[in-house]
Amino acid sequence: MTIIVHHLENSRSQRVLWLLEELGLPYEVRRYRRDKATMLAPLELRRVHPLGKSPVIEHAGNIVAETGAIVEYLVELADGRLGMPGHREDALRYRHFLHYAEGSLMPPLFTKLVLSRVPLLGKVAQKKFQPMVDVHLDYVEGELAARPWFAGPEFTAADVMMSFPLEAAVSRANATEGRPHIAAWIEKVHARPAYKAALAAGGPYAYA
Amino acid sequence: MTIIVHHLENSRSQRVLWLLEELGLPYEVRRYRRDKATMLAPLELRRVHPLGKSPVIEHAGNIVAETGAIVEYLVELADGRLGMPGHREDALRYRHFLHYAEGSLMPPLFTKLVLSRVPLLGKVAQKKFQPMVDVHLDYVEGELAARPWFAGPEFTAADVMMSFPLEAAVSRANATEGRPHIAAWIEKVHARPAYKAALAAGGPYAYA
Repeated sequence: MTIIVHHLENSRSQRVLWLLEELGLPYEVRRYRRDKATMLAPLELRRVHPLGKSPVIEHAGNIVAETGAIVEYLVELADGRLGMPGHREDALRYRHFLHYAEGSLMPPLFTKLVLSRVPLLGKVAQKKFQPMVDVHLDYVEGELAARPWFAGPEFTAADVMMSFPLEAAVSRANATEGRPHIAAWIEKVHARPAYKAALAAGGPYAYA
Repeated sequence: MTIIVHHLENSRSQRVLWLLEELGLPYEVRRYRRDKATMLAPLELRRVHPLGKSPVIEHAGNIVAETGAIVEYLVELADGRLGMPGHREDALRYRHFLHYAEGSLMPPLFTKLVLSRVPLLGKVAQKKFQPMVDVHLDYVEGELAARPWFAGPEFTAADVMMSFPLEAAVSRANATEGRPHIAAWIEKVHARPAYKAALAAGGPYAYA
């Protein structure tokens, strides 16, 4: 049964398309454009889910929102492929990064973006805030220095999950400056055929 | 084997103590105080985990960080108790809220807190930002109007996960004003014996 992806341009939903391509699952894209004034998702997305956000997928009568939950849903649908590794330490890392991407890494990047739009003292606040972002990026750099992919030796859905915050961090917080392992990881990700196919399917994406 | 919880006062780690009490697992608390000037976690937490944040748990040689991942670790340790329900729709809701709590609900509350500390136009920006918080709180109110607990008829770890963002939303964003189901849910939560026991174990907590 085809999966419908409600996809917002230049957003975290790009990951869902990428994972679908990696898993080879059949899908259809419904594209949405950001409101030009607010840069937020258009109101019509509220007809799909009360939060009016992207990504949301529809499959077999289920409406699934929240990227982490969507990723787990799709991995389950693909009989666990790219999901939790068998090795215990890799499994714990997999679970960690599945939550960490949106639960800890993304929030300070989002706050930084909001601060950049506050007139006058917003830019000052944004600068004062950068060290909080750097703690995260230095931690991520250390993890990627220790192993090729986030969970361990193999590429998993945890890498897919981590892509958007890291791409956002490159564009908003100089993530790759002095962090060669983050830079190399992003290059590796962008070279994957499934990543490229998802870009073609999703339309405009400012972070690749 | 006893679980060591690195617990920061007035923080999201309160949930970990609560879940441990609900599951009846043996644990030991290491308490940390916030830096009085910055309100951030003290530097000594970096000796436990490079991010220097709370919660972090130690168990059987594993160091586990990120609340969602800790919750899944503890549920697994308790043979799935309070974990994913058997009913499919409840299971999807369980997974959704496990990610939604920190992935979507907490970030705008955190941003609101940061904005409140920017001099001059920060307060104006904070007000302009409130509708983004309200969309979430109205959605949560609707979910709690439809069923007694977040995943369905039974209390689960998803409720534990949702407690901190909702308690923070009460204190920072008038979450219960005109939202009787959120108010009732919080009252129900605070009345649970395990919740009270966790409060006693954790020390100062401004949100209960």
